[in-house]
Amino acid sequence: MSEKSEIRDGEITLPFDPADEAGPSVAFIGCVRSPWEKGTAPGNLSGARERGGDFAIELDPRYLQGLGGLEVGRYIIVMYWMDRGRRDLIVQNPRHTDGTRGVFSLRSPVRPNPIALATVKITSMDGARIGIDAIDCFDGTPVVDIKPWIASIDQPQDD
Amino acid sequence: MSEKSEIRDGEITLPFDPADEAGPSVAFIGCVRSPWEKGTAPGNLSGARERGGDFAIELDPRYLQGLGGLEVGRYIIVMYWMDRGRRDLIVQNPRHTDGTRGVFSLRSPVRPNPIALATVKITSMDGARIGIDAIDCFDGTPVVDIKPWIASIDQPQDD
Repeated sequence: MSEKSEIRDGEITLPFDPADEAGPSVAFIGCVRSPWEKGTAPGNLSGARERGGDFAIELDPRYLQGLGGLEVGRYIIVMYWMDRGRRDLIVQNPRHTDGTRGVFSLRSPVRPNPIALATVKITSMDGARIGIDAIDCFDGTPVVDIKPWIASIDQPQDD
Repeated sequence: MSEKSEIRDGEITLPFDPADEAGPSVAFIGCVRSPWEKGTAPGNLSGARERGGDFAIELDPRYLQGLGGLEVGRYIIVMYWMDRGRRDLIVQNPRHTDGTRGVFSLRSPVRPNPIALATVKITSMDGARIGIDAIDCFDGTPVVDIKPWIASIDQPQDD
């Protein structure tokens, strides 16, 4: 599934592939609809908001009853699986940082478990199609979970 | 792996178990250390903060290089796998809500992909042990990812 991308200066790979580790399996519950494909995607969620477009989650209809209680205007966390990258690049050299960084200090799609998060607003609900204000991943990206955003869990709490 | 908990009034199960769906596998990268076990855990992250205790992530040492760039005082999102629940309860009747709700409008640990999130502060870093200010899950809960919290991705953006 993963394309082994080129290794940049200073990058380090694990001596094993996390994709081969024994662990529970993820069920895809739907996919993202976006205008983005390889080469055209914005680098991040702010870029997607600026450029705009038609964004949605197409839920697998078998999970439709799980949407009860969500409504337009609500903020949700979309959790999706970035299935195009390698999973073994533990130290990375992103273009936007000065030097190398450990993967857990980055939001890189290349990571041991390639699960991304985006906090977005529901703009429409029509059956299994949930319109959202923006998302920066490719069209067709598999969705893993939808959660309501809750300040006491998802926002830094100062002392 | 999952214990099939009792079904409450109005709850609905899927006609299939998401755990049996074909999908990529998750690699556990470490586990949570907390004072909580079944029967003593607080209901949520605020409750864990109020009660206090010794909280940490014990990273699998094979992933140690992935921590480079993180530091004490930084907020991170801990993503963990709630491995004790069933995955097929699509409509739920939580004690804290008035009536039933779809799973995607709840933060219930019982969900098709039982991945939870907590935004917490790093309080210490000692090798593969990352101290955090609080977490509400059981001691030993498997960790799936650590990400830096970033306002433009993780905070609601008003129009």
